[in-house]
Amino acid sequence: MISLDDRVAIQDLLVSFSTAVDSMHDIDGILAVFDEDAVYDLSGIGMGKFEGHAGVRTFFEGTFAANSHHAHHQTNFAITGFAGDTASARTYVIGMARGKDGGGITVHARYYFDLRRTDAGWKITRHWIDFLIPPG
Amino acid sequence: MISLDDRVAIQDLLVSFSTAVDSMHDIDGILAVFDEDAVYDLSGIGMGKFEGHAGVRTFFEGTFAANSHHAHHQTNFAITGFAGDTASARTYVIGMARGKDGGGITVHARYYFDLRRTDAGWKITRHWIDFLIPPG
Amino acid sequence: MISLDDRVAIQDLLVSFSTAVDSMHDIDGILAVFDEDAVYDLSGIGMGKFEGHAGVRTFFEGTFAANSHHAHHQTNFAITGFAGDTASARTYVIGMARGKDGGGITVHARYYFDLRRTDAGWKITRHWIDFLIPPG
Repeated sequence: MISLDDRVAIQDLLVSFSTAVDSMHDIDGILAVFDEDAVYDLSGIGMGKFEGHAGVRTFFEGTFAANSHHAHHQTNFAITGFAGDTASARTYVIGMARGKDGGGITVHARYYFDLRRTDAGWKITRHWIDFLIPPG
Repeated sequence: MISLDDRVAIQDLLVSFSTAVDSMHDIDGILAVFDEDAVYDLSGIGMGKFEGHAGVRTFFEGTFAANSHHAHHQTNFAITGFAGDTASARTYVIGMARGKDGGGITVHARYYFDLRRTDAGWKITRHWIDFLIPPG
Repeated sequence: MISLDDRVAIQDLLVSFSTAVDSMHDIDGILAVFDEDAVYDLSGIGMGKFEGHAGVRTFFEGTFAANSHHAHHQTNFAITGFAGDTASARTYVIGMARGKDGGGITVHARYYFDLRRTDAGWKITRHWIDFLIPPG
């Protein structure tokens, strides 16, 4: 069973992901939560799949260019797997984006994470998403 | 005062309730959080009162037949009572349902829980709800 | 690094703030989370700045007179600083108010807190807010 320290470290990592995404500029903060070779898979919500720090950077450069404001509220945190130096976690997310063109979207989705323990702490190795409530 | 282990166990149990409710099928997962004799009391939001695993099953069979998608985001978790082998907890919930008929509803409510420690871990003995923001 | 006990104590304090705010009456519960000399600074969302228990009381007397219902969902809790007897924390908030005049508002914002350890537990010494998604 995962220790409380590891649980909290993972929860903090996931929250710091949303904090960086919602800063509208902090790509370094986003990359800091991902392993170098991480897979960032948004295909479950129709937004493509991105690989490694380079892929994540490209995605968020585009996102920050397009949007003026974000809010990503994580709820319902759960550790769904643990094997010492690897773990899996799930949260829900209420994800909001307002575009520079004035449009806006709110999604209710599940965030899934595979993680591994590194010398620099827990890092996300794979992140994927599905909708709780599909848009439209 | 409740231990961190018990606190986390209760929080995980409550999250697993929403996870099962939002699976749109996992009635066993829902029953697993309730004591055999639990009271599931939705009368505070005008939706009736259900008793025991049989009552909870009947309620969710109806819910899953009527709805295509759910999202129940828990926030503001608090332990509100503790006496060794019993405890009480409260969360807020943002509860969303989309009906198979195309309708939808979002409620902002408080979830209340009485729990007891069993050989199979903490179980809910009574669950009731009131609105933070009444609909309409 | 902050202990788990202190982390949980601070998280519970912040949740109890929202619980009291959403009770629509419990000004004593609100004051209990603030240091006597606390600064309650809503200037970041255009709603003024209030000082000490007297200032906080005045603000919430007005709020409770104007509104019939509240919901303040905290998400994305993070400890952002710790120095033994002082700490800083941040949450997100989905803040909803329904006015007695029938109007309503929902805001998505960041809550920031400076805290200090007192003989009566952790207390907020400064609280301020900025918008994640500006209204309108």
